[in-house]
Amino acid sequence: MIIDRLIEKIKETENPTVVGLDPRMSFIPSFIQEACFEQYGKTPKAVAEAFYWFNKEIIDAVSPFIPAVKPQVAMYEMLGACGMESYIKTIEYAEEKGLIVIGDIKRGDIASTAENYSDGHIGRVFVAGHHFEIYQEDFITINPYMGYDSVEPYFKNCKEYAKGLFVLVKTSNPGSGQLQDLDLGGKTLYEHVGSLVSQWGESFIGQSGYSSIGAVVGATHPAQAKKLREQMPHTFFLVPGYGAQGGKAEDLAVCFDKDGLGAIVNSSRGIIAAHQKAEYKGRYDEKDFAQAAKDAVLDMKSDLRRCI
Amino acid sequence: MIIDRLIEKIKETENPTVVGLDPRMSFIPSFIQEACFEQYGKTPKAVAEAFYWFNKEIIDAVSPFIPAVKPQVAMYEMLGACGMESYIKTIEYAEEKGLIVIGDIKRGDIASTAENYSDGHIGRVFVAGHHFEIYQEDFITINPYMGYDSVEPYFKNCKEYAKGLFVLVKTSNPGSGQLQDLDLGGKTLYEHVGSLVSQWGESFIGQSGYSSIGAVVGATHPAQAKKLREQMPHTFFLVPGYGAQGGKAEDLAVCFDKDGLGAIVNSSRGIIAAHQKAEYKGRYDEKDFAQAAKDAVLDMKSDLRRCI
Repeated sequence: MIIDRLIEKIKETENPTVVGLDPRMSFIPSFIQEACFEQYGKTPKAVAEAFYWFNKEIIDAVSPFIPAVKPQVAMYEMLGACGMESYIKTIEYAEEKGLIVIGDIKRGDIASTAENYSDGHIGRVFVAGHHFEIYQEDFITINPYMGYDSVEPYFKNCKEYAKGLFVLVKTSNPGSGQLQDLDLGGKTLYEHVGSLVSQWGESFIGQSGYSSIGAVVGATHPAQAKKLREQMPHTFFLVPGYGAQGGKAEDLAVCFDKDGLGAIVNSSRGIIAAHQKAEYKGRYDEKDFAQAAKDAVLDMKSDLRRCI
Repeated sequence: MIIDRLIEKIKETENPTVVGLDPRMSFIPSFIQEACFEQYGKTPKAVAEAFYWFNKEIIDAVSPFIPAVKPQVAMYEMLGACGMESYIKTIEYAEEKGLIVIGDIKRGDIASTAENYSDGHIGRVFVAGHHFEIYQEDFITINPYMGYDSVEPYFKNCKEYAKGLFVLVKTSNPGSGQLQDLDLGGKTLYEHVGSLVSQWGESFIGQSGYSSIGAVVGATHPAQAKKLREQMPHTFFLVPGYGAQGGKAEDLAVCFDKDGLGAIVNSSRGIIAAHQKAEYKGRYDEKDFAQAAKDAVLDMKSDLRRCI
């Protein structure tokens, strides 16, 4: 079970942190930008290559200290085909370095279409009897609005290829409550989705006691997260919203179980753009941006371990 | 307003049909498959090129008779970067032929990420002062589970570049009710989402009386669609589920207004794989698969016009 591997890596690194690989041109040091512009012109291709270069250096610096990375596909998809290539190469590189990869794709569609997303991202694509592994994330994120038959097509590949999902339950954005907090008469929509996700995950529970079908639960809603943690004892949480979005270590402690497991906390710009923060700026030259990311990872680790 | 252009095209063609460009290798005639395998090997690239070739011939045959096409990005995304290239080339080709393009992408994410999807798909991507148009669909589909702040980033580009959205309200799949039909005390979740979508669309109402912010309402749920049509008089419906998914023209007549406008009905495999259906198989050689698609479009047009 992939969830057991993730938990093993969290124990090894003593760090329930996932680094969000959500590059933006404004984060990329000028020497990388210039080199890529020189080679590819001022084009989306140059940006895609700059992202990959940037990601590789970040991965090299932080991979000994973290269990997982979470590339956000939107940053790459925005650039077109060359961006998707950069996304795929980033996944491959992170996996070579022993990291678990959570593809933040938030897909959701009717069953026959979900099969295509599933085969491309976490399964196999067959061409005239040959098979190809295209994206190969270890986990992907999924949107539940269309119901069980839109999620079920991922389960076959999760079983067959030891992959996992994180289904959106209670997201970190300020407006998440507009639908998710609606009252269904005694419980909210996100609580209802939470109980569906824990049912769906029952046949994916590993030796760790957690399921490879996890839930996205934002760090920015501690009271809700606390209820969900109690309600879903076998569901692992992917927790976005720490740092830039306002979630604090104190708030998200409720996402963890008594052994300090049960969740992995994402930080994106707080780590990958650390070299631009006053805190780290003085320590390193722009060329050493990845060292600033490493320091930010270690600071986040201490911050989390102080609270959980 | 893009919605007015769509309605103009519907009036011109007298046909509220959108052809779903959701190619699968099993639909592609063997002469195309073989030529692509010969050129590119038995690879995802060959499939991507076969899809584009197939789409082009379909577009050539049907474009005089329909207002719009709806490529489903999953079919292309599954193949990796080469698939996204095929998706982009398909959009470009359809627009060259005067068709409106609805990108069926069903994205949904926090605001800062939604901006990236929005800029890539319906806006501009800026690279060192130069701008690029990457996907350039006219409309895209969007998932509302994360609430207003996950949808709002698309509005800026809709305004600036005359683009539109179709937000998932009541989807066509059998399990759509699992969340969407939940009772919020007097109204269902999909009705609630419906009223949000009509509010969001208020400042995008064109001369036609319809908004460029539309709704996805499945053909497979006529009773619900009827209520939504009454509840959302200014919201244009994108109606999936006709044909292969079981929706009949009689059922979806309720999606239209008294002038026979207000909705566009999608058919994918019923049209693009018509050459494999008993009904059309006898008429044409495999090489003329696109003529079968044209016949299927005209049959669907008659079927719809009989009921609306």
